[in-house]
Amino acid sequence: MRTMARKIIVIGGGAAGMTAASTAREHGAEDITLITEDEHVAYSPCAIPFVIEGRIKDFQSIVMHTPEFYQKERGIKVLVKTSVDKVDLDKKQLTTKDGSSFDFDSLVVATGGTVFVPPIEGKDLKGVFPVRFISDGEAIMDDLPSVHQVVVAGAGVIGLEVAVALHERGKDVTVVEMFDQVVPRIMDKDMAKLVQDHCESLGIKFVMGRPLSKIEGQGSVSGVVAGGTTIPCQMVIMATGVRANIRLAEQMGLEIGSLGAVRVSPSLQPYRKGRLVPDIYLAGDVVMCQSAIVPGPTMSQLGSTAVRQGRVAGMRAAGGSATFPGTASPYISVIGGLQVGGTGMSRSLAEYYGLKVVDAVVKGGCRARYYPGAKDMTVKLLADVDSGRLIGGQIVGKDDVTGRINWITAAILKGVTVKEFVQLENAYCPPTSMVFDTVNAAAEKLASELDR
Amino acid sequence: MRTMARKIIVIGGGAAGMTAASTAREHGAEDITLITEDEHVAYSPCAIPFVIEGRIKDFQSIVMHTPEFYQKERGIKVLVKTSVDKVDLDKKQLTTKDGSSFDFDSLVVATGGTVFVPPIEGKDLKGVFPVRFISDGEAIMDDLPSVHQVVVAGAGVIGLEVAVALHERGKDVTVVEMFDQVVPRIMDKDMAKLVQDHCESLGIKFVMGRPLSKIEGQGSVSGVVAGGTTIPCQMVIMATGVRANIRLAEQMGLEIGSLGAVRVSPSLQPYRKGRLVPDIYLAGDVVMCQSAIVPGPTMSQLGSTAVRQGRVAGMRAAGGSATFPGTASPYISVIGGLQVGGTGMSRSLAEYYGLKVVDAVVKGGCRARYYPGAKDMTVKLLADVDSGRLIGGQIVGKDDVTGRINWITAAILKGVTVKEFVQLENAYCPPTSMVFDTVNAAAEKLASELDR
Repeated sequence: MRTMARKIIVIGGGAAGMTAASTAREHGAEDITLITEDEHVAYSPCAIPFVIEGRIKDFQSIVMHTPEFYQKERGIKVLVKTSVDKVDLDKKQLTTKDGSSFDFDSLVVATGGTVFVPPIEGKDLKGVFPVRFISDGEAIMDDLPSVHQVVVAGAGVIGLEVAVALHERGKDVTVVEMFDQVVPRIMDKDMAKLVQDHCESLGIKFVMGRPLSKIEGQGSVSGVVAGGTTIPCQMVIMATGVRANIRLAEQMGLEIGSLGAVRVSPSLQPYRKGRLVPDIYLAGDVVMCQSAIVPGPTMSQLGSTAVRQGRVAGMRAAGGSATFPGTASPYISVIGGLQVGGTGMSRSLAEYYGLKVVDAVVKGGCRARYYPGAKDMTVKLLADVDSGRLIGGQIVGKDDVTGRINWITAAILKGVTVKEFVQLENAYCPPTSMVFDTVNAAAEKLASELDR
Repeated sequence: MRTMARKIIVIGGGAAGMTAASTAREHGAEDITLITEDEHVAYSPCAIPFVIEGRIKDFQSIVMHTPEFYQKERGIKVLVKTSVDKVDLDKKQLTTKDGSSFDFDSLVVATGGTVFVPPIEGKDLKGVFPVRFISDGEAIMDDLPSVHQVVVAGAGVIGLEVAVALHERGKDVTVVEMFDQVVPRIMDKDMAKLVQDHCESLGIKFVMGRPLSKIEGQGSVSGVVAGGTTIPCQMVIMATGVRANIRLAEQMGLEIGSLGAVRVSPSLQPYRKGRLVPDIYLAGDVVMCQSAIVPGPTMSQLGSTAVRQGRVAGMRAAGGSATFPGTASPYISVIGGLQVGGTGMSRSLAEYYGLKVVDAVVKGGCRARYYPGAKDMTVKLLADVDSGRLIGGQIVGKDDVTGRINWITAAILKGVTVKEFVQLENAYCPPTSMVFDTVNAAAEKLASELDR
């Protein structure tokens, strides 16, 4: 690996930024400064719902390392609570809002995303919270004692995880979702129904197909209006999706892609006036990705994607070589003990790209049927009719979903056809699987659908 | 699918035979007779240790269906406790030991395997048991009340599962293994050490690197001799490996492969005098497989393999078309709560084929480190130096090993290189995974080993 006396600046202390800094260090870069607006670095926002739920003891435990650790152990200078005001790409210099300026040889921009809050009346009332930073989680916990009813706006996986967490804390929780299904876009309606049913069985209420139109209250929240009905509550959680934080990118004149995030090359470099910009790399939620399944853009605002991109950006910033390929965006969520995962394309996503899709759903198990505590596992697989390729998978089950999602993901990324997938072998032991795994059974059913 | 008035006979009522019969039925065959020496059909021998352990309530619960079920619901005639004496392939006729004879148009031979019992003194004493059939399990359970000490001969996964089961039943258990590691051949020594340590921490004793040389006793077992030492015991479990049951195949003059099982084509047809034999298909433990990784034979005496081969044999017997490709033989076992899995080649197996191998081991987790009850997961991956391909994986962990083994298996079967594997994405949620999965971390380490 080429090692040069490069001055590297990383903007952002989330998974992408921290990984980029550490990777650059591992590859020989010696002068690395990381600048973040947050007061913490190196924690997983995905863990916040589980702290609220009480499964993880406190917010401090989800912080993997302190800024001091990075300074001492890795020689990375970390500036917390620091905002970058401007970047001059031609001079290779940035200035912070407190007026300091920094030169760089290469720059990593990992400014992440922020929760999209719809521009409705009452959105700034006390008691309305996003769930993004540890400070959000702490603010929610501080308010909890005086709260009886909570409305969660948005039934994506984060919304549902937080809904379960607050329900576990004894709150009366209603989820409001503008689409007519939970986990919209990335999960199909039939599979989403299993997830909603599970949440309802726990005691969580849903108002579906109606957007939040207003938040009511005098100074602090007293209720929300959705579809003409008022739901009384003392807390509103905004889990209404994440938007790429592109302020700096726009200031630099970088091209913003059709999905509202920065368009990048496989080297994670941005474009300006139609040209690739040297010595700047983007990683994480601020990036618009390319799909691994069809030629076309997609978003992949996941911690796992951030880490992978952080590695590429860090390697590049240190003078090395790496690329970030197309993504299948596998995800997993644990919602009230139910594991909910998916990868590749849902039906609605595939149809957005104009693909002709067939699918198959199999309800099997994550254990032999006779094994005590046998647990259901429902697997849905989707194929592209034209190529016969497997293009998506969704699993809802009690156990062992993550590895199976990664298994399907590997097949999707390698362009495996459904017929080929049926031939892929599975490991078997009564406590952990069926002899012909439920995933294989779904593939077999899908193959016969394709043959019709 | 072509449907013909074919008379099909299936010999064997295990996973391979039952699957072949059911598959032939699904594909239009109407006259199907299944003949088995056992009194039960359609159960998983893999479940027997868990019944002994008490996790599964009784042996009856592991029998999925009765012979009557197959007769009534699937129109398959089942003859239990019936031995086939001879098959005349030219006349397409078989005779049973009770003198009946049956004609067939096509024949499926799924005679399985039997436990290899070394020809040592005392092997026929009362108190010496294989673990293969439900009747073995029942006999073990009947004897248990009068047993204090048990010796398990053989530290493969079945031996260890039974050792744990009997230990759970309050017995003093010693495992005797002629190799110097547990799970020999299919697991490498470093990984096997983790498994043995776990068993020892439960209280199971081991005598390693010494074969069982003698079983002592007057009428019934009173001890065993291994490496010159006598170990007192009242029960000996023979978990000394499975040999293909090739009596009938030999009687038919079929070619026996170099590994002691029947050599078959990808259509699962055998050879006689150098020629492929029509209208006969073999499936399950009686078959010698071909490796998916190198050109060459291998054994895959697994329930999951039996089911896959049963499907091919049943389809073929019914006049359809299907092939059984090379195998990576993924396996999973649960040994005292520890999940132990592997796929493709271990180092010793790879070296048997003359491959030059590098490997990498990573100790990570099956959860985020800060998640309560965070559980270790150790992953070993192996690569072929010449091709750069991933050729094997082994995992020891507490959770979600099966899906990860299937994931690695898919990559091996699709010929993925280690460099490509590193790019494969993983799903992430703190309760079920690390943000960069331990499997990916092992692949990354292996890639850098390959680069050296």
